[in-house]
Amino acid sequence: MSDADLLPTVRLKPGADARALRHGSPWVYSDALVLDRRTKALPAGSVAVLEDAERSPLALVAVTPESRIAARVLDRDLTARIDEAWFAARLQAALALRERLYAAPFYRLVHAEADGLPGVVIDRFGDILVVQPNAAWADARSAMLAEAAVQVTRARTVILNGMGRARKFEGLGEGLEVACGTAPEAPVPVPMNGATYMADLMGGQKTGLFYDQRDNHAFTAGLAKGARVLDVFSHVGGFALAALAGGAVSALAVDGSEPALTLAQAGAEAGGMAERFETRKGDAFAVLEALGAEGAQFDVVICDPPAFAPSKKALTQGLRAYERVARLAAPLVAPGGYLTLCSCSHAADVAKFGNACARGIGRAGRAAQLLRTGYAAADHPTLPQLAESGYLKALTYRLLP
Amino acid sequence: MSDADLLPTVRLKPGADARALRHGSPWVYSDALVLDRRTKALPAGSVAVLEDAERSPLALVAVTPESRIAARVLDRDLTARIDEAWFAARLQAALALRERLYAAPFYRLVHAEADGLPGVVIDRFGDILVVQPNAAWADARSAMLAEAAVQVTRARTVILNGMGRARKFEGLGEGLEVACGTAPEAPVPVPMNGATYMADLMGGQKTGLFYDQRDNHAFTAGLAKGARVLDVFSHVGGFALAALAGGAVSALAVDGSEPALTLAQAGAEAGGMAERFETRKGDAFAVLEALGAEGAQFDVVICDPPAFAPSKKALTQGLRAYERVARLAAPLVAPGGYLTLCSCSHAADVAKFGNACARGIGRAGRAAQLLRTGYAAADHPTLPQLAESGYLKALTYRLLP
Repeated sequence: MSDADLLPTVRLKPGADARALRHGSPWVYSDALVLDRRTKALPAGSVAVLEDAERSPLALVAVTPESRIAARVLDRDLTARIDEAWFAARLQAALALRERLYAAPFYRLVHAEADGLPGVVIDRFGDILVVQPNAAWADARSAMLAEAAVQVTRARTVILNGMGRARKFEGLGEGLEVACGTAPEAPVPVPMNGATYMADLMGGQKTGLFYDQRDNHAFTAGLAKGARVLDVFSHVGGFALAALAGGAVSALAVDGSEPALTLAQAGAEAGGMAERFETRKGDAFAVLEALGAEGAQFDVVICDPPAFAPSKKALTQGLRAYERVARLAAPLVAPGGYLTLCSCSHAADVAKFGNACARGIGRAGRAAQLLRTGYAAADHPTLPQLAESGYLKALTYRLLP
Repeated sequence: MSDADLLPTVRLKPGADARALRHGSPWVYSDALVLDRRTKALPAGSVAVLEDAERSPLALVAVTPESRIAARVLDRDLTARIDEAWFAARLQAALALRERLYAAPFYRLVHAEADGLPGVVIDRFGDILVVQPNAAWADARSAMLAEAAVQVTRARTVILNGMGRARKFEGLGEGLEVACGTAPEAPVPVPMNGATYMADLMGGQKTGLFYDQRDNHAFTAGLAKGARVLDVFSHVGGFALAALAGGAVSALAVDGSEPALTLAQAGAEAGGMAERFETRKGDAFAVLEALGAEGAQFDVVICDPPAFAPSKKALTQGLRAYERVARLAAPLVAPGGYLTLCSCSHAADVAKFGNACARGIGRAGRAAQLLRTGYAAADHPTLPQLAESGYLKALTYRLLP
């Protein structure tokens, strides 16, 4: 008798798309799953065997009956056991990719479904791993996951960060704890694109670090030699510090968060760039308008705002906000200068986002060339079957004289 | 009296979209233009003043009455004169971008509409410029264009390459001539991504060099350290030589063109990589099938075929061909290896192309992560208003064990 025989069974409704699952789709929405009393009684995060409507087994899944994503595929091998060795194998595969991509151990180690660990995000900062178990199955097994991660990476510290917004859909609470090792007492220096960033790993999500912009930072920094740079929605100095490392003569970082700007300043100091670096705390729209009124000009301008269109419902309003950012930023770009506009909104695809940017630039009376369309870096892989996973877009324009 | 008063006038039909033109659209299709006897009598490539239906002037345009693109915007400044100084200013702006992007003078210097020179493509190979005047207005002014280009870049040789397929829509014939300087007697060595490519600049389009894949070459080469590489539709060794420069242990280049493979071989020799390089001439599909039958395995596989879907009419068949490429290539990728699939088809957008690739990989029984979506490099800028201009797509997958 195999392990699978001991597991509960859940079943697709007649007419549900078993083909998509067979072709690699990792999710079963609740409206496609038979939610009978037995299935509803399963504790969130239970491992079960998923069957199609004809009772042919499809995969091992993690079930959270009350979630919109009612089941997540864990393994297509029905004989698999979800134990520490299983976690270690997944982590080893994830690590192999990152070690091929990057020389230094600073990257997103696990990007959820695409790395075969649904809902699990792990960022690596040298010896420290920050694990976000954003799905119930992983939250329930976070100790096992942490141990496997230490074994595979030889990291010393594992921080469990339970602050992700997705957790509430899985019935999980908030929390931040050190699963092994000792918590870093100060922000951790992170080398990227020749700059040093300071990441506050115990501050929740507000002041950590996002690796996803690495390539977009690099491209824009490559344009910044000798340039005056404006980085709006700068967070911990993402584009600004990379641009300074690329030879910018000055960079002004604008953000609404004082803690973020303090970290940005510390990064500039750690990189020996403090003399060329300035920060301004304030509402980004207000600062953009004020700079426009002053007639300020920069050779490179970047706007990397928070998600204005986090859901389909917010799309129209979100696109209007992106257009407004472009319209306010374009006049600040010197003739022949560069403008990088970013969106991390799932709902705004690259065409819609690009149209909003083009409209905003046009309404500012400027003509532009689109030089590059960038996405999240390769340590944020996506499943070909999950179109939604391409959330980050970065468009770099040159504004003509 | 200004120059514009001496120019012929052409006019939009009532109801034609003048707003798009005011917002930066560079083209007027023939069905939007009043094609009266007077306009039809204009010689192809005439400069004219474009007016909206209410007779308000919009821009200086180049008119080719018999083309589907009946008018192309040259300048929004109605007082502009299309003379050598005008060409020089456009070329200077184009050069400024490329000098910011690249340390060495090997790049696409002018990418048509997006660089303000509709229908004009100029590739730079050090001291040599290859100019494609693919629109009648530019063909008629090619001597002026060549002189301005020499003045701005200080190049020594200008080759006028009139082999582009677009020329026939403008009523232009084929031809290849040296406008100034002397024709290179041998293939020209081109440094890119640490490799040396050999470009036969007098051989028409078959064996020149495409700069557009530069970033995609670089990304895939970054995965190739220690890898066995297969480069199908290799042309002059595009991905293969970059991968060898990136540390691949071997690379096999497959192409149907003997002259292309000869240049690839010469590039490998010039780069001191000949010992690790092999070529195989043959139909790519047949070679993929033969390698599959042999059970051959590679750590990195690239397929960069010609445009299978050059038009909307050819889309369905083209997508099937892309799917077939993916299905035949995926089994050749070793467990955990990488697969880069490219399309240069205008008609197949990135979503459609990605779906075709995902289907092909799935039909080969492999699961994949999508690591990166790449486009043409930044020396191939696009107009935000011309969605069509994003022709090149390169998707890099990791195939799971």
